[in-house]
Amino acid sequence: MVDVRWLDDDEQRTWRSFLAAVHLLETGLDRQLRRDSGLPHAYYQALAMLSEAPERSLTMTRLAGLLRSSPSRLSHAVARMEADGLVRRRKREGDRRTTVVTLTDTGMERLERAAPGHVSEVRRVLFDVLDREQVDRLREISEAMLGALDPGGDEPRYQVR
Amino acid sequence: MVDVRWLDDDEQRTWRSFLAAVHLLETGLDRQLRRDSGLPHAYYQALAMLSEAPERSLTMTRLAGLLRSSPSRLSHAVARMEADGLVRRRKREGDRRTTVVTLTDTGMERLERAAPGHVSEVRRVLFDVLDREQVDRLREISEAMLGALDPGGDEPRYQVR
Repeated sequence: MVDVRWLDDDEQRTWRSFLAAVHLLETGLDRQLRRDSGLPHAYYQALAMLSEAPERSLTMTRLAGLLRSSPSRLSHAVARMEADGLVRRRKREGDRRTTVVTLTDTGMERLERAAPGHVSEVRRVLFDVLDREQVDRLREISEAMLGALDPGGDEPRYQVR
Repeated sequence: MVDVRWLDDDEQRTWRSFLAAVHLLETGLDRQLRRDSGLPHAYYQALAMLSEAPERSLTMTRLAGLLRSSPSRLSHAVARMEADGLVRRRKREGDRRTTVVTLTDTGMERLERAAPGHVSEVRRVLFDVLDREQVDRLREISEAMLGALDPGGDEPRYQVR
């Protein structure tokens, strides 16, 4: 127990509020998407990443990197989305070890139908309660955290659209 | 699709960085606690709340409120912690509908052994990369989010130690 720098009162309050806000945010977004669109938030994020990629396709490795997931954890979700007709998987020609995931037209329609309600919820719980300076501060804070949490992460990964 | 206020570039960048940081933070804290102490982060938080309560005891309803969980979701975790000897459950005397959860000595020891490594990890990924002003801004942002996400929440719930 020697040399532990416990949190002081300000840090403790910040930490508890942050944890509570993040927990409620994630459960709230997931609930809204499942209820209105039948999509878990994790699936929504995967479909959104694919929709922005060239030819709506990404390798499993690249998709996992964008989602900060591991290929093994992602493969279960992708299998479910394929069974639902939202994505297709295939081996890359001439490179059988690489799996490419492609958003189907059905997946694109599902994403487009889900997006307005999801964005409204993100606005309601985050951007509508922050002023522009707080939005900038939150980005700086998030990027500082990513520097500690994911030091090998490419900067472009945060900016993919 | 009418009247959807899509995220602008600044908001989009903030949102993606924030989601990635939060996702990595939660998986990282959970991994450290499971590896070094055999405790999921959710269990650690429940034990910490109980350790600070009078007589190390809280009703299930109150504990769920502090953790921003529901009593039904919490009951599975509490049953597991009871099986591991970390907490005890009993019906309140004269009020058989209310379940009281108490931290055991074993649970307190487990929490105390886990705390230094956990706090070091929280410092490494959050407080060590933020200056004091950013800590204050993060608290304001989190409290603003809580106002939208949990408008009925008591202020004292954020401050419990």
